[in-house]
Amino acid sequence: MARTTGRVTLPSEGNFLEETKDIMKRWGADALRDSDGTKLPEEIKNLDAKIYTTYFVARGHNEFAKEHMEECQQLYLMSRRVTAAEEKVEIPFMEGYFDQQVTPDYVHDPKHWWEVMDRTSGEIVAPSSWEVNQRKHVVVVNNALPFHEYTVSFLVYAIWDPTQMYNHITNDWGDKPHEIPFDVRHPASGQFAREYLIQWLKDNPRTDVVRFTTFFYHFTLVFNDKAKEKFVDWFGYGATVSVKALEEFEKEYGYRLRPEDIVDNGYYNSTFRVPTRQYLDYMDFIQRFVARKAGELVKLVHEAGREAMMFLGDNWIGTEPYGKYFPEIGLDAVVGSVGGGATLRLISDIPGVKYTEGRFLPYFFPDTFYEGNDPCVEAKDNWLGARRALMRKPVDRIGYGGYLSLAYQFPAFVDYIEKVTEEFREIYDNINGSRPYCGLKVAVLNCWGQLRAWQAFMVAHALWYKQTYSYFGMLEALSGMGVDVIFLSFDDIREKGIPKDVDVIINAGAADTAFSGGREWLDEGIVTALRRFVWQGGGFVGIGEPSAAHFGGRFFQLADVLGVDEELGFSLSTDKYFSKEQEKHFLKEGREENFDFGEGVKNIYALSDETEIVEYSHGEVHASAHPYGKGRGIYLAGLPYSHENTRLLMRCLYYSVRKEGEMMRWFADNPLCEVHAYPETGKYAVINNSQESQSTLVYNGEGKASRICLDGCAIIWNTI
Amino acid sequence: MARTTGRVTLPSEGNFLEETKDIMKRWGADALRDSDGTKLPEEIKNLDAKIYTTYFVARGHNEFAKEHMEECQQLYLMSRRVTAAEEKVEIPFMEGYFDQQVTPDYVHDPKHWWEVMDRTSGEIVAPSSWEVNQRKHVVVVNNALPFHEYTVSFLVYAIWDPTQMYNHITNDWGDKPHEIPFDVRHPASGQFAREYLIQWLKDNPRTDVVRFTTFFYHFTLVFNDKAKEKFVDWFGYGATVSVKALEEFEKEYGYRLRPEDIVDNGYYNSTFRVPTRQYLDYMDFIQRFVARKAGELVKLVHEAGREAMMFLGDNWIGTEPYGKYFPEIGLDAVVGSVGGGATLRLISDIPGVKYTEGRFLPYFFPDTFYEGNDPCVEAKDNWLGARRALMRKPVDRIGYGGYLSLAYQFPAFVDYIEKVTEEFREIYDNINGSRPYCGLKVAVLNCWGQLRAWQAFMVAHALWYKQTYSYFGMLEALSGMGVDVIFLSFDDIREKGIPKDVDVIINAGAADTAFSGGREWLDEGIVTALRRFVWQGGGFVGIGEPSAAHFGGRFFQLADVLGVDEELGFSLSTDKYFSKEQEKHFLKEGREENFDFGEGVKNIYALSDETEIVEYSHGEVHASAHPYGKGRGIYLAGLPYSHENTRLLMRCLYYSVRKEGEMMRWFADNPLCEVHAYPETGKYAVINNSQESQSTLVYNGEGKASRICLDGCAIIWNTI
Repeated sequence: MARTTGRVTLPSEGNFLEETKDIMKRWGADALRDSDGTKLPEEIKNLDAKIYTTYFVARGHNEFAKEHMEECQQLYLMSRRVTAAEEKVEIPFMEGYFDQQVTPDYVHDPKHWWEVMDRTSGEIVAPSSWEVNQRKHVVVVNNALPFHEYTVSFLVYAIWDPTQMYNHITNDWGDKPHEIPFDVRHPASGQFAREYLIQWLKDNPRTDVVRFTTFFYHFTLVFNDKAKEKFVDWFGYGATVSVKALEEFEKEYGYRLRPEDIVDNGYYNSTFRVPTRQYLDYMDFIQRFVARKAGELVKLVHEAGREAMMFLGDNWIGTEPYGKYFPEIGLDAVVGSVGGGATLRLISDIPGVKYTEGRFLPYFFPDTFYEGNDPCVEAKDNWLGARRALMRKPVDRIGYGGYLSLAYQFPAFVDYIEKVTEEFREIYDNINGSRPYCGLKVAVLNCWGQLRAWQAFMVAHALWYKQTYSYFGMLEALSGMGVDVIFLSFDDIREKGIPKDVDVIINAGAADTAFSGGREWLDEGIVTALRRFVWQGGGFVGIGEPSAAHFGGRFFQLADVLGVDEELGFSLSTDKYFSKEQEKHFLKEGREENFDFGEGVKNIYALSDETEIVEYSHGEVHASAHPYGKGRGIYLAGLPYSHENTRLLMRCLYYSVRKEGEMMRWFADNPLCEVHAYPETGKYAVINNSQESQSTLVYNGEGKASRICLDGCAIIWNTI
Repeated sequence: MARTTGRVTLPSEGNFLEETKDIMKRWGADALRDSDGTKLPEEIKNLDAKIYTTYFVARGHNEFAKEHMEECQQLYLMSRRVTAAEEKVEIPFMEGYFDQQVTPDYVHDPKHWWEVMDRTSGEIVAPSSWEVNQRKHVVVVNNALPFHEYTVSFLVYAIWDPTQMYNHITNDWGDKPHEIPFDVRHPASGQFAREYLIQWLKDNPRTDVVRFTTFFYHFTLVFNDKAKEKFVDWFGYGATVSVKALEEFEKEYGYRLRPEDIVDNGYYNSTFRVPTRQYLDYMDFIQRFVARKAGELVKLVHEAGREAMMFLGDNWIGTEPYGKYFPEIGLDAVVGSVGGGATLRLISDIPGVKYTEGRFLPYFFPDTFYEGNDPCVEAKDNWLGARRALMRKPVDRIGYGGYLSLAYQFPAFVDYIEKVTEEFREIYDNINGSRPYCGLKVAVLNCWGQLRAWQAFMVAHALWYKQTYSYFGMLEALSGMGVDVIFLSFDDIREKGIPKDVDVIINAGAADTAFSGGREWLDEGIVTALRRFVWQGGGFVGIGEPSAAHFGGRFFQLADVLGVDEELGFSLSTDKYFSKEQEKHFLKEGREENFDFGEGVKNIYALSDETEIVEYSHGEVHASAHPYGKGRGIYLAGLPYSHENTRLLMRCLYYSVRKEGEMMRWFADNPLCEVHAYPETGKYAVINNSQESQSTLVYNGEGKASRICLDGCAIIWNTI
């Protein structure tokens, strides 16, 4: 096969010209980038490649920032909770925060901008009942109610950019200056951001692509007094707050946001919270501002004849790539880090940009590239995890980051990536922008819907959490499955109903979270829409605590659809007779391993003998199906990611719409393998998602099967 | 040692005179009773023993009942839930019920007495929107909202006594007549109950003790259309309902109860539900009626020179032995079935009777006494489990039930019980009514308090439930522990505060249940009372989901006391740094086995480094301690009953009040052994709760320890 080139971005660095040329050739790279801590020298910039240059808008300009400390970014923080043992209580509100990162805002009147909360009663303490001791950073509450807990929600200035702070502390950068984040909402900062960029574009004529890292507001990342992470929310709007923003919000929306609307009991409106109307308004307000301001910068880039690329992370807050204002920014491209299939789709599905780029793992840093370690292990895992998703919707480019000189010392790694880049281009060319065969259209229903497409259950980007992996596995499974995936919110259903072309709705998550839906399930409009949908032939797959909101004698409001409910203790007096597992069932055909529901959910029971129990153990149902009109409700107690579970979910989807017979059109019976077909280009591929060779029956789109063998990691292309 | 006699009740039967005399002598029995299905013949009645005769008030008189079917007992039942697929929906409300047990009440106007509920909206469907088809037992709802769920709450007559029904079906009694339960609230039934008893006392001159089995209302026990148990609530007031009762309630309380107040979403006010004011009113109303009416019967018994004994079970509803009206009944004695320590204390702690009797296991029935089985196994388990509790507060008598002729065929069993009866009398005499040494006073806090002393977490009497054993173990452990135990309700605290002499408060149970407390924890009066209590030196031990009610940023409202909370997903963004188990800790001193928290609770995390983590696994805290003022908060994820866990709880109690040093006053270091001291009588006992011989250090009340060895099951008495 002829060697291909392109669609690959490399990091490079000084004193590495010949090696860079060598790797460019081997990997077919057509773009070069700088990286955290590296700069491209002239000789590299003059190679035959697009040059990406990292650009920071709101940090790294201390000469400006120090002269405009009143334009620093701000946050609302909540103090720790202090119990009043007597009527006077002192709240040392800065306790537990890192004074090098944040400093209290005493410029704006605390009596107006801060809030002391009685967390026991839920009431605001009247400003007349407390005073601030600015010297000690203490709020003194008089007339406290003994044994009530009190907190202070207070404004701070952020005086250290969180990403630089993290790198600074991690790499022990000593007295290297702290980069101060400024807020472009303020006049001087806004003007500076524009003017600096104009000059910078002039000063960097060789830059083809301005890689914004990113725009204005970092995701919420707050450190503690030991200079360690205290709070991290990759979706958090914490750093977008300022007195100016709050005033402008009030003017525009006609009501004033309370500190509590931001602080939210110390949860800070985590995406796990069913969002309040106030927070949704605030997000919308910030998004419009960010889109407008970022759009102005992008316009400058375009006027200078360059491309604008946004990094999906760091200061990305307010851009919301799946939000309605994102296209207004006018970006050419988005680049993001690929941790697996779902994070790849998070990038590749972004609408309204010319191209997307995935930064693959491992990052060329010493934590992976050290003597005795084989970086190919992580690379293979990453590639196999992401490739499934690429088959559904590829990013347009792939790339790497870090120190190329480090990776170059690992020849086997360089060889492996050479293979990967070839394989990527082959996939990309064979798909050629066409729509892959989708057997079903699946909608994931939660409070966030499309705005947070592929982003459900995440806390910090792509990190593992005990409380989330059993749900996130569903997204990961879907990311490479032969189905169309959309994300629906409860508001979508209220406003427009369930889209006609949706076959199956998935609701997954822990009770009361935004992903399960919490109080949304008390809206009869939602409940009846779902029941009607399934009754008329749709499928409903519930994972964990779907539709959970205790009301009217049910915990799962769709218990009638699912045929199961969770025993909260109140109905222990009712005999539970239904515990017999069905020996044979479509959902467990071909299964060789035991089920793995991850964390699972306790005390799920079947409501009647109409519930088909697929797995029952420890006195609980963990997998079941239930007929409901022309459709079915399927229950799973959890779905951590694995190939077996991906197959289980696929079976659930087809079974839920009573289309079991259609599952094996394009299909590999070995769950470690998958088939992706592209009717428009007349091609199909069989992939081996494992590193061992596999034998599988392959169904060719017309129900005919033939056995093939694939080497570990293999991909085999055929014509239809 | 001289043989003792007395305090033992035997069942007997026909044609068994000599053997009865033999066993009476060997077991020292001084009372004889009939049993289900046996009658004592004259020759037996003439033996030198008190004679107990079982007496049924409200069943077993079909000649009367059949002539007064309008005075049958009644129930409110809830139909199954029916989803409206269109505007007209039919609810076959009797579906799933057993028509030999209950029959719809069409005598009283359904439009007035029944309720059709829209369970999706929670609203009542106007009576004008539905009709009853009495021929088909169907309610037809017109103008239904499509895809809402509907139920009918309807009145039935109960036409078969549940206990007789159970025995009838279980033993296949064929065409033996069904005993019809009548309601003494009605004039004819009330009069009949009195007159029958008067005559019966005349007809049964040899009866010394009328063993009421029991009074008027059976606990709720409803069968399904397959003649199997559908719903069982040992505490349920279901069968106390009648039109007459509801009318009288309205007159007295000034408001009308809705069917929903009784049906309660199909939960029927399970004791796991935080009780509503309406249900508490209703219970009080029924209790007063039962006390008055039962008191009238007891008076007749006394007038005839006999004793009145009540069986704790079957038709015991409304008697509430721990309620405020119980003493008014004027009973001489209560007898109940002993399943272990907590059920023994449930009997022996009953105030206001002259004596209590425990019916021990096994029952002399063929399910235990069959060839090849050793009935001693169950007898030993039962005795060892109950003996611990006897040491704290003995019942005054022990007894057995069933067919003595059956037990007589097992000589080893007869030998063993001979030993048991001797041992019981020795314990009883040595305690001699004195108060055992109590190191601490412990209050169990839940919604029911003293009214349900020793009855928390029970569904059907003493049966094992997956959802309860991890909590019930706490009661079982306490039942034989060297501490004073009381039961407190939230109302008690609101009305009278926490009693001054309480050292430790325990709150245990699943979130939102009456045992944890649910919404009670949103009452700042409760929360602050508990905080103040611990702050001033009290102990708080939380098991499972103590003080759980999500509000103000906490799930456990006493998280500040406990130092732990449950992660619901909302605070995943907050870093959790505290996971280090303390290598040495008072709570795990002397521990040899791994911890067993039973079902446990997921996602418990420590709030700060002040929390002493005693057990941490699977990313969760399962046992911890936390200083709070002068007291401490202790957390356990569950406490199934075991000797190790009994010791763990004891350690928790002492640690919570910072009295670790006082635990070993009267103490055995081997957790399989316990020491009980009786300062008033100058005696103390060391018991071996295991069936194997044990060596233990015994602390003699003054901190001096000496080692002793005990045979399996042994009890050794010493003088102080």
